[in-house]
Amino acid sequence: MNEQSRTEIATLGEFGLIRRLTENLKVVNSSTCYGAGDDCAVIAQPEGMQMLVTTDMLMEGVHFDLTYVPLKHLGYKAVMVNLSDIYAMNGQPRQVTISLALSKRFCIEDVKELYAGMRLACEQHGVDIVGGDTTSSLTGLAISITAIGEARAEDIVYRNGARETNLICVSGDLGAAYMGLQLLEREKLVFKGQSDVQPDFAGREYILERQLKPEARRDIIQKLAEAGVKPTAMIDISDGISSELKHICTQSHVGCRIYEEHLPIDYQTAVMAEELNMNVITCALNGGEDYELLFTVPIADHEKVSRMEGVKIVGHITQEELGCALITRDGQEFELKAQGWNPLKDENMKE
Amino acid sequence: MNEQSRTEIATLGEFGLIRRLTENLKVVNSSTCYGAGDDCAVIAQPEGMQMLVTTDMLMEGVHFDLTYVPLKHLGYKAVMVNLSDIYAMNGQPRQVTISLALSKRFCIEDVKELYAGMRLACEQHGVDIVGGDTTSSLTGLAISITAIGEARAEDIVYRNGARETNLICVSGDLGAAYMGLQLLEREKLVFKGQSDVQPDFAGREYILERQLKPEARRDIIQKLAEAGVKPTAMIDISDGISSELKHICTQSHVGCRIYEEHLPIDYQTAVMAEELNMNVITCALNGGEDYELLFTVPIADHEKVSRMEGVKIVGHITQEELGCALITRDGQEFELKAQGWNPLKDENMKE
Repeated sequence: MNEQSRTEIATLGEFGLIRRLTENLKVVNSSTCYGAGDDCAVIAQPEGMQMLVTTDMLMEGVHFDLTYVPLKHLGYKAVMVNLSDIYAMNGQPRQVTISLALSKRFCIEDVKELYAGMRLACEQHGVDIVGGDTTSSLTGLAISITAIGEARAEDIVYRNGARETNLICVSGDLGAAYMGLQLLEREKLVFKGQSDVQPDFAGREYILERQLKPEARRDIIQKLAEAGVKPTAMIDISDGISSELKHICTQSHVGCRIYEEHLPIDYQTAVMAEELNMNVITCALNGGEDYELLFTVPIADHEKVSRMEGVKIVGHITQEELGCALITRDGQEFELKAQGWNPLKDENMKE
Repeated sequence: MNEQSRTEIATLGEFGLIRRLTENLKVVNSSTCYGAGDDCAVIAQPEGMQMLVTTDMLMEGVHFDLTYVPLKHLGYKAVMVNLSDIYAMNGQPRQVTISLALSKRFCIEDVKELYAGMRLACEQHGVDIVGGDTTSSLTGLAISITAIGEARAEDIVYRNGARETNLICVSGDLGAAYMGLQLLEREKLVFKGQSDVQPDFAGREYILERQLKPEARRDIIQKLAEAGVKPTAMIDISDGISSELKHICTQSHVGCRIYEEHLPIDYQTAVMAEELNMNVITCALNGGEDYELLFTVPIADHEKVSRMEGVKIVGHITQEELGCALITRDGQEFELKAQGWNPLKDENMKE
């Protein structure tokens, strides 16, 4: 929260605030016919394209903790998680609408910070902000973003197309964002005087960045297109690879085997897990917020995906009857369980 | 809130709850290629059509009070206010996404009630529910809905097309929803023992229904099309006709005159205002949530709109220099002020 300069939101009112936030918005997509400023935004769809629509809601205290998340990072991430869903359908994001509910705790400078992060994320991915809603909240901050993208009908990749013998691929590495969160939670305890372990972020920049500033993997979508590889199924990893892989298998009516030794894990993730006495494989399987892409490809594409930088083959699709399992380094088979973060689990539902 | 039968949401989890809520959803629009169940919904745009996108966020304690608003009505209204924005562009709503943040106070039966109202509103307007997000909240209920509609580019009506001599028209009547709110607020005080006026809803059904179950005016859009009238500017009345008229005038660079004697006011609205010692004209000008359509038409369409049932001509557009004014019954001129409800005003921003 901004302590230096504080202008109450009530001094501008809803329309003044919206004007302030949306001034100098440049339209970059020709499909954006009319943005903020009327009852609706108006969007044209290029010939032969279909539209992709996704939405995400982030609630203070549930999805983010402003004790350690800077508002600009929060804005950036809130947009990014939506763009990630568009890429996960093999599409290109084009527009977003942004709705905010603000409590009196927030001043105009705060909202500008938050919005600056949102604008940055949009700029980097060529996305137009075309509208939204700005209102008040009795407690805390609520963010609801809807992203709109496009893709040719024949290019769209659903979750239900994985077939037996397909290879299972994953981009980047797993569990780092979750380890970043653990590090920040530990710092918070120190700050509150409930722990005496001094926070030390040196050498942990990567896991912090993965938590605070995730990047939606447009680059992977481009690489796949350039290599002429169309995944048979794809999803983005928001709740851990175990949970997402089960979505693909359920919807595709198949089973899978993934291999512990092939799971991509960064050095910093492993070190942090060690330090916290956590099993790094469990973190990689179930840690949330990776925003990597998980996809399956025909075995004929083996060579192409093997050569693709930032992509790793972690297993293969099997018959449905074989279920979903992890093969450990010593050859044991463990059933995969969707233990990923569940926003409606008891511990996350307070009051 | 449902007291008889209460199933905790945690027993189903996010995916179980979504499955329960979206089961048996029938797709009615051919443009809905793929609804809930993947990273995004997929929508095709018919040839020559443009897409309209609008979004609204409703927060418990700010936009609704569950002490007197039944959940089913709340769901119905939450969808309706979004559809109203699509009609206000002269478009047809086709899809919605629905995001909910729920505190632990809500059980599955509650969410089903809320959703039943949403589904009913969608069914009545031929709209598909194509996705959303369901998550938890530390306190209260938050609802964020995005509606998607379509219109031929040449049919879309913006706020900026009003021209001098155009007639100003309004559908239905004004101020009734606001009076319904006053009545409910009074009942709440009785319930809390802070007032001894007995609530009496007999003969007040209309203003209650206007508050609790507003209808987006699809019928007016149809009548305009049938009569071959294309408004030059249009907006839906959510914050009072004064505020909305000022939006049209500002964006169209024009002024306006409206006449007190022509403002459509229902008998029940007038009686309730009288009883509460409120000026009924002030209520009609600034009371929110009418969800009627306010539009301007060329003077050549005078006869057509005069004959249109449910539409009233309330004034005309002038040069910008003349400003926006109300002419009273005794011929006095008062400047119109946008005093409508402002969600970011001090009194609405607590904590």
